[in-house]
Amino acid sequence: MLENKKVVLAYSGGLDTSVCVKWLEQQGAIPYALYLDLGQGEPADDVRAKALKIGAADAFVRDAKAEFVEEYVAPAIKANALYGGKYPLFTALGRPLIAKKLVEAAREVGATHIAHGSTGKGNDQVRFDVTTASVAPDLTVVAPVRDWNMSRPEEMAYAEEHGIPVPTSKESPYSVDQNLWGRSIEAGPLEDPDHEPTSDVFELTAEPENAPDEAGYVEIGFEEGLPTTLDGQELPLVDLIEALNTTAGSHGVGRIDMVEDRLVGIKSREIYEAPAALTVIQAHQELETLTLTKDVLRFKATIEQRYAELTYDGLWFTPLKSALDAFVSETQKTVTGTVRLKLYKGSSTVVGRTAPNALYSKDLATYDPNSTFDEAAAAGFIALWGLPARQWAGVNGGAEQSAISAKH
Amino acid sequence: MLENKKVVLAYSGGLDTSVCVKWLEQQGAIPYALYLDLGQGEPADDVRAKALKIGAADAFVRDAKAEFVEEYVAPAIKANALYGGKYPLFTALGRPLIAKKLVEAAREVGATHIAHGSTGKGNDQVRFDVTTASVAPDLTVVAPVRDWNMSRPEEMAYAEEHGIPVPTSKESPYSVDQNLWGRSIEAGPLEDPDHEPTSDVFELTAEPENAPDEAGYVEIGFEEGLPTTLDGQELPLVDLIEALNTTAGSHGVGRIDMVEDRLVGIKSREIYEAPAALTVIQAHQELETLTLTKDVLRFKATIEQRYAELTYDGLWFTPLKSALDAFVSETQKTVTGTVRLKLYKGSSTVVGRTAPNALYSKDLATYDPNSTFDEAAAAGFIALWGLPARQWAGVNGGAEQSAISAKH
Amino acid sequence: MLENKKVVLAYSGGLDTSVCVKWLEQQGAIPYALYLDLGQGEPADDVRAKALKIGAADAFVRDAKAEFVEEYVAPAIKANALYGGKYPLFTALGRPLIAKKLVEAAREVGATHIAHGSTGKGNDQVRFDVTTASVAPDLTVVAPVRDWNMSRPEEMAYAEEHGIPVPTSKESPYSVDQNLWGRSIEAGPLEDPDHEPTSDVFELTAEPENAPDEAGYVEIGFEEGLPTTLDGQELPLVDLIEALNTTAGSHGVGRIDMVEDRLVGIKSREIYEAPAALTVIQAHQELETLTLTKDVLRFKATIEQRYAELTYDGLWFTPLKSALDAFVSETQKTVTGTVRLKLYKGSSTVVGRTAPNALYSKDLATYDPNSTFDEAAAAGFIALWGLPARQWAGVNGGAEQSAISAKH
Amino acid sequence: MLENKKVVLAYSGGLDTSVCVKWLEQQGAIPYALYLDLGQGEPADDVRAKALKIGAADAFVRDAKAEFVEEYVAPAIKANALYGGKYPLFTALGRPLIAKKLVEAAREVGATHIAHGSTGKGNDQVRFDVTTASVAPDLTVVAPVRDWNMSRPEEMAYAEEHGIPVPTSKESPYSVDQNLWGRSIEAGPLEDPDHEPTSDVFELTAEPENAPDEAGYVEIGFEEGLPTTLDGQELPLVDLIEALNTTAGSHGVGRIDMVEDRLVGIKSREIYEAPAALTVIQAHQELETLTLTKDVLRFKATIEQRYAELTYDGLWFTPLKSALDAFVSETQKTVTGTVRLKLYKGSSTVVGRTAPNALYSKDLATYDPNSTFDEAAAAGFIALWGLPARQWAGVNGGAEQSAISAKH
Repeated sequence: MLENKKVVLAYSGGLDTSVCVKWLEQQGAIPYALYLDLGQGEPADDVRAKALKIGAADAFVRDAKAEFVEEYVAPAIKANALYGGKYPLFTALGRPLIAKKLVEAAREVGATHIAHGSTGKGNDQVRFDVTTASVAPDLTVVAPVRDWNMSRPEEMAYAEEHGIPVPTSKESPYSVDQNLWGRSIEAGPLEDPDHEPTSDVFELTAEPENAPDEAGYVEIGFEEGLPTTLDGQELPLVDLIEALNTTAGSHGVGRIDMVEDRLVGIKSREIYEAPAALTVIQAHQELETLTLTKDVLRFKATIEQRYAELTYDGLWFTPLKSALDAFVSETQKTVTGTVRLKLYKGSSTVVGRTAPNALYSKDLATYDPNSTFDEAAAAGFIALWGLPARQWAGVNGGAEQSAISAKH
Repeated sequence: MLENKKVVLAYSGGLDTSVCVKWLEQQGAIPYALYLDLGQGEPADDVRAKALKIGAADAFVRDAKAEFVEEYVAPAIKANALYGGKYPLFTALGRPLIAKKLVEAAREVGATHIAHGSTGKGNDQVRFDVTTASVAPDLTVVAPVRDWNMSRPEEMAYAEEHGIPVPTSKESPYSVDQNLWGRSIEAGPLEDPDHEPTSDVFELTAEPENAPDEAGYVEIGFEEGLPTTLDGQELPLVDLIEALNTTAGSHGVGRIDMVEDRLVGIKSREIYEAPAALTVIQAHQELETLTLTKDVLRFKATIEQRYAELTYDGLWFTPLKSALDAFVSETQKTVTGTVRLKLYKGSSTVVGRTAPNALYSKDLATYDPNSTFDEAAAAGFIALWGLPARQWAGVNGGAEQSAISAKH
Repeated sequence: MLENKKVVLAYSGGLDTSVCVKWLEQQGAIPYALYLDLGQGEPADDVRAKALKIGAADAFVRDAKAEFVEEYVAPAIKANALYGGKYPLFTALGRPLIAKKLVEAAREVGATHIAHGSTGKGNDQVRFDVTTASVAPDLTVVAPVRDWNMSRPEEMAYAEEHGIPVPTSKESPYSVDQNLWGRSIEAGPLEDPDHEPTSDVFELTAEPENAPDEAGYVEIGFEEGLPTTLDGQELPLVDLIEALNTTAGSHGVGRIDMVEDRLVGIKSREIYEAPAALTVIQAHQELETLTLTKDVLRFKATIEQRYAELTYDGLWFTPLKSALDAFVSETQKTVTGTVRLKLYKGSSTVVGRTAPNALYSKDLATYDPNSTFDEAAAAGFIALWGLPARQWAGVNGGAEQSAISAKH
Repeated sequence: MLENKKVVLAYSGGLDTSVCVKWLEQQGAIPYALYLDLGQGEPADDVRAKALKIGAADAFVRDAKAEFVEEYVAPAIKANALYGGKYPLFTALGRPLIAKKLVEAAREVGATHIAHGSTGKGNDQVRFDVTTASVAPDLTVVAPVRDWNMSRPEEMAYAEEHGIPVPTSKESPYSVDQNLWGRSIEAGPLEDPDHEPTSDVFELTAEPENAPDEAGYVEIGFEEGLPTTLDGQELPLVDLIEALNTTAGSHGVGRIDMVEDRLVGIKSREIYEAPAALTVIQAHQELETLTLTKDVLRFKATIEQRYAELTYDGLWFTPLKSALDAFVSETQKTVTGTVRLKLYKGSSTVVGRTAPNALYSKDLATYDPNSTFDEAAAAGFIALWGLPARQWAGVNGGAEQSAISAKH
């Protein structure tokens, strides 16, 4: 079925996708490799050579960091996108971009198929497939790893047999994914949700106990919902994220340990490190409390949850996601200002916030007698605010007679 | 209008409500004082004597801590009730109980009015009024402080004139409220949201810098959604909360610094300390991720937000709150298990969780080849899951042709 | 794989499931047939004989109408369950009951499998499978029609070959399903959503043009959310539904023509007839507007939509559905009263409603000068209600300067 | 306080606002009158003369029908805005426009105040006040009718005394408001929610019994969410609405009888006539089911409800409304097509719909064996879709053991 078909593969340089190249070739396909740099933190230099050596018809290496942060991370910041209230969705945000780039490459080389190295029990297979369906419904998606069903030793044997380089050092028990917006660690002992992760799990964040004894402070400036300055200095978003990863990570800030619901119906235990993502979103949320009305804040919480779900579930390029983006963007026009964070041995605390068009008004809020707030209005407000409760109680007997009860 | 009316006043022993007693008397009312111990951490001994001395017809002192935690805090735990995602609502939970007790006392002494010492710009006036309307719509609520409109110096002068004890030490710049579930601090320099709170603000929590250099661990056990054990030892909820306040507070855990939306339409800056509340809810949320289905977790988030809003907005004894309680209670039947937290210099981290009926299954989730998960099903799942996106893209041109775009 | 396995089949007496009996037997299975009367309106008499004749090891016929309305229809009434705001979910409500009864029968005869005659593109296969998974996760579900992939002529040939009675009259172009709560008609010319259904499609409802020239009136009485009387006469729910189907249907009331989103990712065009369902829910909704507070009504709308989705999607026996039921039940305690409907040539109109504990108060609502409503409170209410909007406009320039705009 | 202040009054030409002119003058104010034609269906000719004669410093008459439908009705159509699921919000949509025009006039004549004739127990006072606060927070709003507290006879006496024309014919018992998008009737015998409205209540809609014996058909064409053609003929939106009001009204279509929750905390019984609004929204909703994905349809329902609430509650010019508009607009890009309605003796039924980019696909949906739907994928889909339910049941015992129950 793949005979003589051009297939563009999302190539990482690792064992799985290296075996994919060969496997595709053996199916009669003409495999192309595409490596996308989203900030994996690994040298991309010889990836191209490796793919060609294994048998790729051609191989492409592209730096997509700027596109990643501008088109995927930036809207996620505006939406405070945290799946399950915790996970900043870095992998989920990267997959649709990779799929889109695979499609672009497929158009260039005239391929009819794209391929990825995801297994059958994760979320990524869904993200690749559905994004491709959304972007280019005419292309077919192949998932060799899911389909060939080799065990790890079988895969190693296959690799050796076909001259594919095999990792020689002792293999890490963990499965890791990383880009600019965060790093995930799973598998091995972490599959026991009662097992506390040991320090070898982490790379981006210091152990809190080893973090500096003196707190650090950072000041993040936002323009219309996006971070633009760090400690007063203007920075491109890519650089700002990299700098924050370093600073916040050095204070042990950015670790996440959670049990999460995968799209495919199972729960998994995940460890994440995301120093920049967590501090940026924390600061952004804080600035919103200063610049958005109560009504917007309350409703945006519902939007944000759905936003995170859609992103997690591989529905980035769908019309609902697009409509949620329109909602979110409209709210960000006034989200401009500065938030100061204290970083200390694993915790990040907002300690100050200012905004040129803050809705907080000291004159209204102060308990000073000079407050501009009209206290006399309160009685009228309460009379009507409580009228439905009063009417209900009058008709139904009141909570005294326990028509209403908190007990169940 | 208050002439010869019996009025039951929520009495705290402080200046405001002491002046209220006298003021009510001067209006011709017959004032009764009710002091409720919800864990304010202050000696209640001479409060009764003080009220009588100022002129109360009678004064009552009651320990309501157990009722508070069982009837108000417990359902809030099940609902993970955090207003604005942060504030554990301790004052908001206490007010309806105080109002209910005021009504009970009013019934006992045959009063037609109840009174409280809230000002006109806070949330508490609403909570007292609406709760009373819900519980006993025939009673009238009086808010002397809101109505008399005295400045602080006028109030002091009035107190001295009428022999009401006036605080002699230098007054704190802060306005404080406290019960078992937390402590709030506002006013003074904190009215500037860009001002970092100084250490004199806090009482329940150590400065992170002064907290022990060695991390502490606590293990909280839950039965059907409520904490029942601490480090393996069964404890009544009141005791468990007190113990956690001490332990977590000693590690600097439990501080909240936020800008919040009051019901009366203004934003205010609030500092809270709630070591037990934050750690209990954190552990409870974590246990829920292990024992509740994805569908329940996703929908409960919406319920929780509304629950917190209603509680904050004084609508505790209303039929919507009651229906939300029914939803929440139904979900808690299987929320049983244990969560282990690491407390260290201001941060609290979940490091382990177990549950007898955890929905997490290592057999399903593991990347081991022996997993019971049927990977073959994934292809079929994705085909139908992505079908609407594919159909949309087929009809409308696909994201390639930018029918859908994340840009706005 | 089915060799020597006992399989309990949901048997309708029609061609598909008759063929299933034989097919199961040919796979080596021991087929049992179960026919459930949910009000299909067909004689169940010889169904048992037919199943036995074709080769069932045993066959059971059970009247489940009362259980259907009490355990499935009744909660759906309380939840105003209408999928897409229109479809009263009668088939979706029937499937979980059938699955539950299949499990019961399986336990009785010691079967390890249950079977149903659903195809691979509808919702029913999901409802059967997921309900069985929820009720008895140890049982295996077989879907012969989905798996054997015979065309209609092949199926006919197979039937004739094996002595299975084949319909001799010209086949209807429509595919029909029916129970007490409604009747669905699909396929044939109805697959064109621009085709107006012709009169041969309908059985329960008169053509509006042929309905009586004089309007009919019905009065439905409710107790705690459920209909208990019709025109003042107490009736068991089964009888009340049957009577309303007749009366409302005779006036042409109860037709639905819609495009709906199936769970499996496709849109389909559906015609329904549900005279009782539509009038009961219409009356119930109306009574709720009289007896529930605004807060409950607004939030219940969200609950209702999710309720309908879960029911449609086969998730009846899941914990989220159970929690929604708890919410809904709690709200129904005061939904008692009477609603009068006018039925006329295809339309049903509420023309009156009363309730002993109506929250509507003429004294409050009247424009009479004697109203008990305190108009003076309105100014205070508005001042605080509008404060966030005023503050926003003061800070951001006001809609005059077009900080806010309805145009996009 | 109004001494020498220029005040622009929303003038209707009726008794209330005529008295307002004189009353404002008596307070020392300089009253200006503004009459806005939104399709009230009354001659606006001599309104100006009347205002001047009573004592207005100046009077303005403006035709705002086009602005009304384009800027207020059009976004409401896209949002299917129906308060309580029924009321098309015509008055609520008109008020913010009137307030905005009052502000414009105030700017022109240099007024510091605007005034309206609303009472203290309705929604309109809130809409006028909050809109003005949103648009021009520096202006003060005066509500003479709410403040002067005259009974109807007192008002009549006042009018006669000051030479203000008083209605001579017997007064209608009803209070009526009308614009292009609908007509409301309340008060009098309608204050009894059990009273069936008599035929004298209605003006825009025929009694169903008197409507034509032959059904009428209309075909409404939409472009990106807005109606642009009627029976194939392109029409400006104002004309299309007027034509539909006539046609649908002649068939008795468009009546609404409901109990609704006012913002000020009370329930009221309302009768509406809105032939065009109901049929346009019905057709629009139908077209959306054909052209929007399931995800969008499900989530848009939540958006729509909030949209209607905000509009009803006077929050038209607020940032949340603006963000909801952005969401809605984004969804409407593909809502293009035609819907055919049958109008017959009070009922309006969709009988056909087509769209160039319909997501409905007969090829996918058909029960034909040639369907392009992949039935084999269904089994995999169901396996994962039902996995959480299966896992739950496996752990918690299954609904058989009644861990989950619909009973409460």
